[in-house]
Amino acid sequence: MTPPIEFYFEFASPYGYLASIQIDDLAARHEREVRWHPIMLGAAFKETGARPLLHTPLKGPYLRHDAPRFARLLGVPFTEPPVMPANSLAASRACVWLEGDDPALAKRLAKAVFHAHWGEGRDIGTPEQVAEIAAPLGIERAALLAAVADPAIKERLKEATAAAIRRGVFGSPFVLVDGEAFWGADRLHQVETWLARGGW
Amino acid sequence: MTPPIEFYFEFASPYGYLASIQIDDLAARHEREVRWHPIMLGAAFKETGARPLLHTPLKGPYLRHDAPRFARLLGVPFTEPPVMPANSLAASRACVWLEGDDPALAKRLAKAVFHAHWGEGRDIGTPEQVAEIAAPLGIERAALLAAVADPAIKERLKEATAAAIRRGVFGSPFVLVDGEAFWGADRLHQVETWLARGGW
Repeated sequence: MTPPIEFYFEFASPYGYLASIQIDDLAARHEREVRWHPIMLGAAFKETGARPLLHTPLKGPYLRHDAPRFARLLGVPFTEPPVMPANSLAASRACVWLEGDDPALAKRLAKAVFHAHWGEGRDIGTPEQVAEIAAPLGIERAALLAAVADPAIKERLKEATAAAIRRGVFGSPFVLVDGEAFWGADRLHQVETWLARGGW
Repeated sequence: MTPPIEFYFEFASPYGYLASIQIDDLAARHEREVRWHPIMLGAAFKETGARPLLHTPLKGPYLRHDAPRFARLLGVPFTEPPVMPANSLAASRACVWLEGDDPALAKRLAKAVFHAHWGEGRDIGTPEQVAEIAAPLGIERAALLAAVADPAIKERLKEATAAAIRRGVFGSPFVLVDGEAFWGADRLHQVETWLARGGW
């Protein structure tokens, strides 16, 4: 069994969404699994001195035009959310919580959160909003609300983010395949070439 | 005649080099011309608060691995230069100087500078180094040295950079095609799709 592809993302990142739509299918074409890792990108930004693109002169207007244009090219829904960047703590903690017992469910929740936030333009900033997105997947509201307030879960997300940074992750999306790092939704075609050729 | 593609780049940017190798052929496939615009990226960085990638934690090591890997994929030479980021003032001024009388020669010089710097790993930081790169193209050394010290030429590059920033340019490479902005060497396939389909 070949090792899985590591897919790091921040829910508040539109490019994370645009990659999340493609990454599983891309990997499946090369008989690879994908491990999804929500991270708190703000922690990486502290290392690199980056600021959220949206609030950066010149880059902000570019992003707001580019992300929906990129989505149209992929044929996926895109709606600008009311709050950007969203507070992704609750959503990320919920995924980290589920990951322990049921990684497949954690991934389904991550996809649902991305779709709600960037596909439908819903805010994901509060635990209640995340619980609402999770409910149709059979995830119990009370259990989720308890989990995202649990210090052990908070710590687990913090540690997962720190581990990602130690592996060199500084952006969203960020893909590690066989030790090779690829940053950005626009690099997935290089990821695909890497998988197809076994490197170059 | 369809309007030309506007190609903005910074000589000190390896991704500018990687795009410069492809942009003319790409445009020619769609019967388009390309206007090359060297800019002083530092001026845009003042607007966006960006720092040179190379001196940014996490991003620096990524860049140094990614740029040569990208070059291998394209099958083009890549040698890490001794000084990064290079001082690109003299090279950019020389191009701006030639642009007035002979845009084709300005483009040939730009290609020669990119090749010397990123293909062969030569420094381009001094007027003398630029003059050496320019000599095989029949560009007279004394004339070039005078031009890059000419206040009018200095002003022209400054103004060209300011004009680029006013058009939203903040990175290298940066491509404007029919009013649409595409940032990054990894976006050239989107530029190509845009040209092939006339938008999407």
